[in-house]
Amino acid sequence: LTVCIALDAMGGDHGPSEIIPAACYALNQYKSLSVILVGQEDRIRQALAAENMDPHARLAIEHAPEVVEMHEPPSTALRNKKQSSMRIAIELVRDGRADACVSAGNTGALMGIARYILKMLPGIDRPAICVPMPGINGHTHLLDLGANLNPGSEQLFQYAVMGSELTSAVDNIASPTVGLLNVGEDEIKGNDIVKQAAVLLSESHLNYTGFVEGNDIFSGKVDVIVCDGFSGNIALKASEGVAQLISHHVQTEYHRSIYTRLAALLSQPVLKSIKRKIDPRHYNGASLLGLRGIVIKSHGSADKVSFANAIKEAMLEVEKNVPERISTRLEELLTDRVAV
Amino acid sequence: LTVCIALDAMGGDHGPSEIIPAACYALNQYKSLSVILVGQEDRIRQALAAENMDPHARLAIEHAPEVVEMHEPPSTALRNKKQSSMRIAIELVRDGRADACVSAGNTGALMGIARYILKMLPGIDRPAICVPMPGINGHTHLLDLGANLNPGSEQLFQYAVMGSELTSAVDNIASPTVGLLNVGEDEIKGNDIVKQAAVLLSESHLNYTGFVEGNDIFSGKVDVIVCDGFSGNIALKASEGVAQLISHHVQTEYHRSIYTRLAALLSQPVLKSIKRKIDPRHYNGASLLGLRGIVIKSHGSADKVSFANAIKEAMLEVEKNVPERISTRLEELLTDRVAV
Repeated sequence: LTVCIALDAMGGDHGPSEIIPAACYALNQYKSLSVILVGQEDRIRQALAAENMDPHARLAIEHAPEVVEMHEPPSTALRNKKQSSMRIAIELVRDGRADACVSAGNTGALMGIARYILKMLPGIDRPAICVPMPGINGHTHLLDLGANLNPGSEQLFQYAVMGSELTSAVDNIASPTVGLLNVGEDEIKGNDIVKQAAVLLSESHLNYTGFVEGNDIFSGKVDVIVCDGFSGNIALKASEGVAQLISHHVQTEYHRSIYTRLAALLSQPVLKSIKRKIDPRHYNGASLLGLRGIVIKSHGSADKVSFANAIKEAMLEVEKNVPERISTRLEELLTDRVAV
Repeated sequence: LTVCIALDAMGGDHGPSEIIPAACYALNQYKSLSVILVGQEDRIRQALAAENMDPHARLAIEHAPEVVEMHEPPSTALRNKKQSSMRIAIELVRDGRADACVSAGNTGALMGIARYILKMLPGIDRPAICVPMPGINGHTHLLDLGANLNPGSEQLFQYAVMGSELTSAVDNIASPTVGLLNVGEDEIKGNDIVKQAAVLLSESHLNYTGFVEGNDIFSGKVDVIVCDGFSGNIALKASEGVAQLISHHVQTEYHRSIYTRLAALLSQPVLKSIKRKIDPRHYNGASLLGLRGIVIKSHGSADKVSFANAIKEAMLEVEKNVPERISTRLEELLTDRVAV
């Protein structure tokens, strides 16, 4: 099982310096894993030397002279950077030399290049970005997080199929429940696109349970939540904002006096346990669904633990053959629809 | 200064039983306040007797025989419930017998009735729902929260004017900074409506600072954030969901053992202080902006403290004459635009 890792420019605090240690960590953890690091060879060799990891039987390097920058427009990256790490990594997937690609770089460019090189699965119009969001028990897969800002109702239906198959595969749920994100649970609520998507979903054999609201992203009410990329991205970032706000207040309040510092000390195990439960690092690894191949987007500021989780997600999707499952399921559902 | 309170059906845990105590509490707190309770007279008298508050020189009752139910479609409420508390309360505002109306009932019906009875301010197409969201320092006014799911760019511009004037009035900020909610900060991001709105805002004399992302709702980066009602509602509810999730984990983890219960006991002042800082009760009172009159929507499950905050918000908007300020400012900005 071979995962290739594209080492383009990273946006966050950590960047490539965390990715190579993460790859080494994953190689040690998973004996079935082989890794191809795609990027500037001399820099990769330097980083590997620092980790005492060179040579390794399951580790290869593929040289890529160009780098897609973090804020480069996707169209420019696609047109001008034919030797970028991202492009070469995705070509490795297309050519069967790798089973999946992981990148922490420019999301728009990654998506554009993946769509151009790998092509879409039959019947899927556009890719969707899907992540697991932490809930009271387990997690809920939310999609789309911003691949497509104005999807039509048929595309929301495709997202439901993709999210449902991904969840079924990676969480071992036979028939995951699917909700449609809306501004209320009543049938009369929402815009026309959401209402039409609700009709398509109700008439299908998906386990569609109806409209859900923003708070249900974290309530565990359903296994999959489908939404347009604009709302999904804003819901994700707003949630990160609240968590940061609370974390800020926790730190400030516990540092207020000697008394509160003592309380903080005693609360360490509790605070750590809570943090672990909602830590986005454990939920790192967004799936770019709908492509003829497996592409995982890691958060730009991923650290070692976090990036290793994205590699693990890629491995799981390879083992479960997620793209083929999506394709088969979509065809079944569309055949059912014609038969009706 | 007279505030009327519509006692229709309430959605939440508390309902009317909390509203009459809240009104009594507000009357004691604010000597300039007069209240008209609008609803079923016998039930109001009973509730007042329980509070030992009848008679009171600054408290009047206006009988309304009908009730708008929580899940009643707004169109039905508007057509069939001409004697509802909501409708009669809003008529009191129209007729100048009250300066503002507060309701914890059906939001859609309240908005529909307010729009029909009070009419829009000149130049404003549709009302917007605006709430202050807690931030690291102070708060950020966010609008729209769901009055209009598909606004055009001109409407987003109007929201910016309304949010800016409200914030200037109630927070005493001369020229509040305004951001436009989007899926990224780059100019190339977002859909056409958001991009067009950005142009309108950049060319105006509003203190527009550019695109902001979901996490900025809580970062204090700007004073006002403008968005469509669909995304705004989802961002608000998703944020509530995260806060509930964290609160759930805090409670569970601190109850795990005798040791953690001791830590919880010592942490009480800290936890209370954090809760107070992000407590939605202190941020209760959504403004329905753009109307020829002041209408405040309280959360359906508001308790006494929370509902009293909605009354206070109504009083503040009356004192600052928010609708007239919006109207004057919009006219200035549109005149500037023609002049250019």
